[in-house]
Amino acid sequence: MTQKILVLPGDGIGPEITAQASRILAACQARGLDVEVEEGLLGGAAYDVHGEPLPAETLEKAKAARGILLGAVGGPKWDRIEDLAKRPEKGLLGVRKQLGLFGNLRPAITYPQLAEASSLKRELVAGLDIMIVRELTGGIYFGQPRGIEERDGQRVGFNTYVYSESEIERIGRVAFEMAQKRGKKLCSVDKANVLEVTILWREVMERLAPEYPDVELSHMYVDNAAMQLVRAPKQFDVVVTGNMFGDILSDAAAMLTGSIGMLPSASLNESGQGMYEPCHGSAPDIAGQNVANPLATILSVAMMLRYSFDAPALARQIEEAVGKVLDDGLRTADIASEGTRTVSTREMGDAVLAAF
Amino acid sequence: MTQKILVLPGDGIGPEITAQASRILAACQARGLDVEVEEGLLGGAAYDVHGEPLPAETLEKAKAARGILLGAVGGPKWDRIEDLAKRPEKGLLGVRKQLGLFGNLRPAITYPQLAEASSLKRELVAGLDIMIVRELTGGIYFGQPRGIEERDGQRVGFNTYVYSESEIERIGRVAFEMAQKRGKKLCSVDKANVLEVTILWREVMERLAPEYPDVELSHMYVDNAAMQLVRAPKQFDVVVTGNMFGDILSDAAAMLTGSIGMLPSASLNESGQGMYEPCHGSAPDIAGQNVANPLATILSVAMMLRYSFDAPALARQIEEAVGKVLDDGLRTADIASEGTRTVSTREMGDAVLAAF
Ligand SMILES: CC(C)[C@H](C(=O)O)[C@@H](O)C(=O)O
Ligand SMILES: CC(C)[C@H](C(=O)O)[C@@H](O)C(=O)O
Repeated sequence: MTQKILVLPGDGIGPEITAQASRILAACQARGLDVEVEEGLLGGAAYDVHGEPLPAETLEKAKAARGILLGAVGGPKWDRIEDLAKRPEKGLLGVRKQLGLFGNLRPAITYPQLAEASSLKRELVAGLDIMIVRELTGGIYFGQPRGIEERDGQRVGFNTYVYSESEIERIGRVAFEMAQKRGKKLCSVDKANVLEVTILWREVMERLAPEYPDVELSHMYVDNAAMQLVRAPKQFDVVVTGNMFGDILSDAAAMLTGSIGMLPSASLNESGQGMYEPCHGSAPDIAGQNVANPLATILSVAMMLRYSFDAPALARQIEEAVGKVLDDGLRTADIASEGTRTVSTREMGDAVLAAF
Repeated sequence: MTQKILVLPGDGIGPEITAQASRILAACQARGLDVEVEEGLLGGAAYDVHGEPLPAETLEKAKAARGILLGAVGGPKWDRIEDLAKRPEKGLLGVRKQLGLFGNLRPAITYPQLAEASSLKRELVAGLDIMIVRELTGGIYFGQPRGIEERDGQRVGFNTYVYSESEIERIGRVAFEMAQKRGKKLCSVDKANVLEVTILWREVMERLAPEYPDVELSHMYVDNAAMQLVRAPKQFDVVVTGNMFGDILSDAAAMLTGSIGMLPSASLNESGQGMYEPCHGSAPDIAGQNVANPLATILSVAMMLRYSFDAPALARQIEEAVGKVLDDGLRTADIASEGTRTVSTREMGDAVLAAF
């Protein structure tokens, strides 16, 4: 049966960058990838049409798709929506939750062609290759109770950071297996000196460890992890952590590479269904100008082929095409440097297609 | 009436570094600072003697002191204590809470003599001077309910992230006032696109802003803040955020400078009573070897004189002495570089005293 891919352009630069990625997808179909591609509305774009960030129609399409390619959601246009449930971000969180996409893989890789782009000294980031495994459907993002209410004559805001053993075990296994396929080192990040929920987190990771004897498990407090990422990022192989810490650390790690416009991500559920998106945001300041970097989105297609369609050869061909374009000195503005040629979003798409 | 200073050496390198800072304190007394200095036990050191990290005697002394100088607490020796309430860190959290030290000031400054020590490129950190204002007695560190319990046949861990309007307002005012004395820019960090508690946070900051018309208030999501700190740290002047985000971001910011061994911190309550401590931890791996850097602790004394004893001249003299020692090329191992002279903890103390 022909499987489905759903493209959700979203907001800001989302439509431009997914447009280029869709061209690559079409080229993959031409090379025999048996998929049906359709589009849907998510985030602010959906709110503007339907009054909600995750319309029922989009959710239905998402559930029916094996792979979802997302651009990005959010922007100042929707920041003033009073009802948090209607904001663009809630559309994204809704897809994650409804499809059970608990396993978020965020690679932080330094491209040899772009090592100068990092704000860190070259020797600290050359060859950097970290995989951050972030739990994506639990923790404080979804914990109940939550809200703002009146207590003793003043308003109080509250959220709940909660994990069950089974949730921790599930993401722990993803991380251990990832470490087995890579450098065999797993660092679990918590705040077990202060937060009970992360004491349980640490305990479960310890309990799993003997089942993966080839993986060396270590633990680090989140504040120290933030420091160590800045000080000596190459000490890490695979990092596993909860939703909130993962949000912060994966963005910091991505920025270390100096080329956040290059980094894809995957969000998977237990059956391998997944949503794929660039690590960067919707960049409303440059939206519609044909200058955004489409490579992270194009590389998200490669990740999709690898993790959801078991098509590693095609994935590699996309990645090699991107590498070739970089070798040729083509750069969008965000990664431009002396001696390279600055190209537009569409020209970058053209170049990758030509090299594919 | 003679005011009191309590020195809490704590664990790991704590005793060595506070020993050097105490010599500076004694020199200040000799120059007319009218204080009585005593010592107390906190953290693992207290646990080993009294079976608890914050003995009643220490708490009493702390309450009676105008200024508290802390080395650092914690270490692997106590990591296996089952009862979280007995761990060294809880001693520190107890002092913060019991004395109401809600206002944590964490400067991240690049010393011109040490700009090469940063893992960031020189131009990005030269002249860096950020003040992170972290709320220290609320948020998820202290929120109730918390714990680990059985639910539906499995264990679940949970913590509560909670802030009231008055708590937010109190730390907001500290931050706005700090910004007024500095570069007049305040960036409030939250996750208002996901967490209700930080929607309230943002609202209160907005409400305060008109009272400080000379300060430019901006807001940033915590994941973006972690990125921006790595990408372009000099964009920040004063940053204000909650306890957990502040823990992570202040450590990242400290590490950006490349010389976390140089950074002091202050934790103040409404009456100016304060605890002062280096930003770095107890570094158990180098404890007792006479190699730790005592400068952050010595600079914490300067901060104490400025914020709790209204003795800015004496504070400046300490800071100038530290500057002179660095100019002379003396370095402890953590900040050593080519062409400088590596000295021990005690020799560094000697040198600062001599320059004072
Ligand atoms: C847009 C936002 C809700 C989201 C998150 O916090 O998870 C984003 O920052 C991310 O990391 O994918
Ligand atoms: C030791 C620990 C409890 C403490 C904290 O998390 O507040 C430390 O990391 C700090 O930042 O002072």
